[in-house]
Amino acid sequence: MGDGMKPYQELSREELLTLKEELEKAYEEEKAKGLKLDMSRGKPSVAQLDMGMDIFDVLNAESDMTSMEGIDVRNYGVLDGLTEAKHMMADIMGVSAEQVIVYGNASLNVMYDAVSSAMTHGVMGHTPWCRLDKVKFLCPAPGYDRHFAITQHFGIEMITVPMTPQGPDMDMVERLVAEDESIKGIWCVPKYSNPQGYTYSDETVRRFAHLKPAAGDFRIFWDNAYAVHHLYDEEERQDKLLEILGECEKAGNPDMVYEFASTSKISFSGAGVAAIATSKANLECIRKTLTIQTIGHDKINQLRHVRYFKDFEGIKAHMRKHAALMRPKFEAVENVLDRELSGLGIGQWTKPRGGYFISFDSMEGCAKAIVAKCREAGVVLTGAGATYPYGRDPKDSNIRIAPSFPTPEEMRMATDLFVLCVKLVSVEKLLGE
Amino acid sequence: MGDGMKPYQELSREELLTLKEELEKAYEEEKAKGLKLDMSRGKPSVAQLDMGMDIFDVLNAESDMTSMEGIDVRNYGVLDGLTEAKHMMADIMGVSAEQVIVYGNASLNVMYDAVSSAMTHGVMGHTPWCRLDKVKFLCPAPGYDRHFAITQHFGIEMITVPMTPQGPDMDMVERLVAEDESIKGIWCVPKYSNPQGYTYSDETVRRFAHLKPAAGDFRIFWDNAYAVHHLYDEEERQDKLLEILGECEKAGNPDMVYEFASTSKISFSGAGVAAIATSKANLECIRKTLTIQTIGHDKINQLRHVRYFKDFEGIKAHMRKHAALMRPKFEAVENVLDRELSGLGIGQWTKPRGGYFISFDSMEGCAKAIVAKCREAGVVLTGAGATYPYGRDPKDSNIRIAPSFPTPEEMRMATDLFVLCVKLVSVEKLLGE
Repeated sequence: MGDGMKPYQELSREELLTLKEELEKAYEEEKAKGLKLDMSRGKPSVAQLDMGMDIFDVLNAESDMTSMEGIDVRNYGVLDGLTEAKHMMADIMGVSAEQVIVYGNASLNVMYDAVSSAMTHGVMGHTPWCRLDKVKFLCPAPGYDRHFAITQHFGIEMITVPMTPQGPDMDMVERLVAEDESIKGIWCVPKYSNPQGYTYSDETVRRFAHLKPAAGDFRIFWDNAYAVHHLYDEEERQDKLLEILGECEKAGNPDMVYEFASTSKISFSGAGVAAIATSKANLECIRKTLTIQTIGHDKINQLRHVRYFKDFEGIKAHMRKHAALMRPKFEAVENVLDRELSGLGIGQWTKPRGGYFISFDSMEGCAKAIVAKCREAGVVLTGAGATYPYGRDPKDSNIRIAPSFPTPEEMRMATDLFVLCVKLVSVEKLLGE
Repeated sequence: MGDGMKPYQELSREELLTLKEELEKAYEEEKAKGLKLDMSRGKPSVAQLDMGMDIFDVLNAESDMTSMEGIDVRNYGVLDGLTEAKHMMADIMGVSAEQVIVYGNASLNVMYDAVSSAMTHGVMGHTPWCRLDKVKFLCPAPGYDRHFAITQHFGIEMITVPMTPQGPDMDMVERLVAEDESIKGIWCVPKYSNPQGYTYSDETVRRFAHLKPAAGDFRIFWDNAYAVHHLYDEEERQDKLLEILGECEKAGNPDMVYEFASTSKISFSGAGVAAIATSKANLECIRKTLTIQTIGHDKINQLRHVRYFKDFEGIKAHMRKHAALMRPKFEAVENVLDRELSGLGIGQWTKPRGGYFISFDSMEGCAKAIVAKCREAGVVLTGAGATYPYGRDPKDSNIRIAPSFPTPEEMRMATDLFVLCVKLVSVEKLLGE
């Protein structure tokens, strides 16, 4: 592009105007290509879905449909999941099977139900939240828009907590939960966080476990969505997350965490198996509601998953294939960003070692315009602001990039367009337009 | 048994004492047999589950996983169900696909969510029920214990409405909903009702459609669980239920009904497909919550069902096999009841032409004792009282018999024991013991 490595902020007005002209010309050329790419959601690619097709040969008309405990999985019964499915989900979360309830196809639904039931029935004997004047949640941001949508739906006030590479700002978390009894929860994606790909440090996890919340029914909503979703096979290039249930127990806070996980991005999105892991007392409270809410979740699909993956080694082997598909896409994005934006002072981005997203921070006040420009040229990104409570990014700078669905080549093209839009919008901003 | 056909009420004290001795002897003999049979729930039998095993050959590793509209069912997307699955569920309910949202594996969960969301968010813009001093539901009884459990769980006051062979006492329903704004709903199993097997008459359905509820957010919870669950193949021996959504629309009450159905007793219990059918305005309101609650239900299982059953003719053919398995069990029960209890004045029972249950009414104050005696001798029945709100049958006389799980021969044996217990408890009652 001829813009070299000089920070844009150091360019003269003349240089900026020349640059703008070049960028506009390049943008029109890009637009003419008629791209049509969607990087808005963390959707698995077709290749990734194809990878798991053998699961449909696991059960056939001749199959034994009996669980390890002799239960006919085709019939009613077993409220909280097959024992073998509990083990599978426990292994993913690094907890024990006794701490697990297995659900249906979506962990989002489990989180929704956890909030909904806290609203109407309260948590472990505490006052139902719907009877309180005010209920608040802490929302580390940038974060996951669907988490924030749940709390917003229930009229829960959301307080933004800044994210750092080690996790949420724990000074702020500790202070707020200790002083405000109306704070009842916090949304966390502790491993390969959405959208930054950060993994909470051991110290962060320990500080979580040692929180002294004013509210007895304060719960950490620990959405361990990417527990086994590494990009690299080498152990030393994989993030490790300290197991929080054990830490909480040691710290004398055994009931403080609801941990969630699913196989949505292991087997199939929307046809996997979801689970919660939590303390015995929480499980008892949850089962009381569950026994009214359903006769039980889909045990056939649980059995199908267990027989397909066999054990945790099977899941890890599967996720290495998953990594092989994801890695080139992440690298395609990073290569273009490195090459085109390094040193220009108009953007920063994360380099995750797992998960589904890359987080990009533009200059303040540019994100919305960048996303709009990309869309105009055929590349759909997650709406700017979506990563903040109420969809409002106070600096209008965060953009979530979801490389999972397109091919690596498409990701390269999409990122070429993206960096062009970043440059163009940044120049316009610096020109005061 | 030597007790002939004379009503027990006409027997002398002497005759009753002799009879009691005989019955006690017979009961001890039965007990010695060591029966172990469960007639407590409407559980499909193994033969019935075996009947549907070919569904697991429908999808295999080579299958095209694309819906009729070109959607990859393995990925995210499609909040309210595949179009072909909507058609399948619509056919079962006799409505149109546009009136349907397809859910996960359990209609009970859909009902729970409907009540839960009315509690926290209200129905179509009305005040959330949790903010009202009092919310009441009408509960035609005997009815389905899991319905009553949902309303009880949410602290909703339940008002018992007597059932008749034509449906609930509509004079009472009309009067109560018109005069009491706190009445927000009514639980109905309109076809082959649980437990009596009654089907609401056309007049009953029309009176429902013409209700003039004081509450604008009054909803009829129309659990059409046994829509295609006939016992006989001949059309003239099948009950017909007037389609209520159309009647409500004609009556100017388009939004008054939530209709529920599932394939739990067509394909597999707990691994089928559930659905709601309702008006456009209700669907819009439900979708608003659904979009927060989940990313979508299991579309792979929806596709599996559609490809297996193909069309409504396929479902009807499947249900004829279902009928062939169920019919001998119902007839085994009825034969024993007819032969052993007719004319004795100690019990009445229904003779359903479909569904999953037979309802038995003993003399007042005998049901609990009969169920206990059966259990003592190895036959488990649904707990007496379960068919009434709060588990309290005011007359202690209703017992639900669920013939679906055991074999016909086991049903005959279980019913032999059952009639013996009915006789024994009745004699004790008449002797004032």
